Amino acid sequence: MFSPPIERLITELAQFPGIGRRTAQRLAFFILRSQKEDVLQLARAIEEVKEKIGPCEVCFNLAEGPRCRICLDGRRDGSLVCVVEEAQDMIPIEQTHEYSGLYHVLGGAMSPIDGVGADDLHISELLDRVKEGGVKEVVLATNPNTTGEATALYIAEAIRETDESVTVTKLASGLPMGADIEHADEVTVGRALAGRRPF
Amino acid sequence: MFSPPIERLITELAQFPGIGRRTAQRLAFFILRSQKEDVLQLARAIEEVKEKIGPCEVCFNLAEGPRCRICLDGRRDGSLVCVVEEAQDMIPIEQTHEYSGLYHVLGGAMSPIDGVGADDLHISELLDRVKEGGVKEVVLATNPNTTGEATALYIAEAIRETDESVTVTKLASGLPMGADIEHADEVTVGRALAGRRPF
Repeated sequence: MFSPPIERLITELAQFPGIGRRTAQRLAFFILRSQKEDVLQLARAIEEVKEKIGPCEVCFNLAEGPRCRICLDGRRDGSLVCVVEEAQDMIPIEQTHEYSGLYHVLGGAMSPIDGVGADDLHISELLDRVKEGGVKEVVLATNPNTTGEATALYIAEAIRETDESVTVTKLASGLPMGADIEHADEVTVGRALAGRRPF
Repeated sequence: MFSPPIERLITELAQFPGIGRRTAQRLAFFILRSQKEDVLQLARAIEEVKEKIGPCEVCFNLAEGPRCRICLDGRRDGSLVCVVEEAQDMIPIEQTHEYSGLYHVLGGAMSPIDGVGADDLHISELLDRVKEGGVKEVVLATNPNTTGEATALYIAEAIRETDESVTVTKLASGLPMGADIEHADEVTVGRALAGRRPF
């Protein structure tokens, strides 16, 4: 019942996670009602992130240049590396203001069912960082679910084989099993971080 | 904690109705993870609707050219005009498949508190359509709330003054007071349409 350009917009918006066709319609009509300049700013913001943002060459966090803001920050403790599945998992950890080390973004978790193996994640690059020296502790902060735990176990073994002197820890319990780190509150993540234990 | 382009995208996305900062973050990370081509299609779809879509010169529905698809459809009954506040209010009415007339989109409802008077809506253009002749019945389908009811009352009076021979009806009760037509289910709207009564 809508003209093709409106239908195309609704279809594109409905591809977002958690956005059904009805919400997509509501968003489309909001876009149609809004001032042209405001809406074009959104379109430009979308284009800009896809043009300017790429993976950090060190930790695979999102970066505007070759290295991300955290890797470039000289005040961060380079001897401490926190391993997360996705870049957004860093948000609640940063919000605790209790972590001053660097990160390493895996790009997911090992999941044989989905065909994701160790080689599909940035694990070899993590081992290279360990080999280069300077890393004293690796904090595993994968999601506390089956794939996350399996990935943590695999990485812990691999680091031990690479350099026995590196301490491997994981976030303390406090996070309920099956949850996503991305959606956890700061207090819970803060406690889990403070109480991290040897793996 | 994000680079400026990502912050800009999150800020732009958070301006949508019903989308808070956390949801905007989730959508931004979805955009960052997606294939560049898919995401640029969304940006282009947004630009396209703002370039190509404007108001229909007859009924103020959204149109790709000077007239909307409904006004151009020769099978529609030109003697019947349904008056709605916004273009999206037409969706549930069309979905009943019980209405074959044309529409007239007011662009809102009269609301003295918000400074919206009769002159800010497309009421004079509706009266012009009535003056031109051919219209036998005007169905008022404004929202069943204070501003919608006041607008309906004003329009009913104005049509009576313009042409006494035109029947003015309104959607039958069945829609609960305070609701939005946009979100009503088809059955409720269908019953309200079938049982419309003289105003």
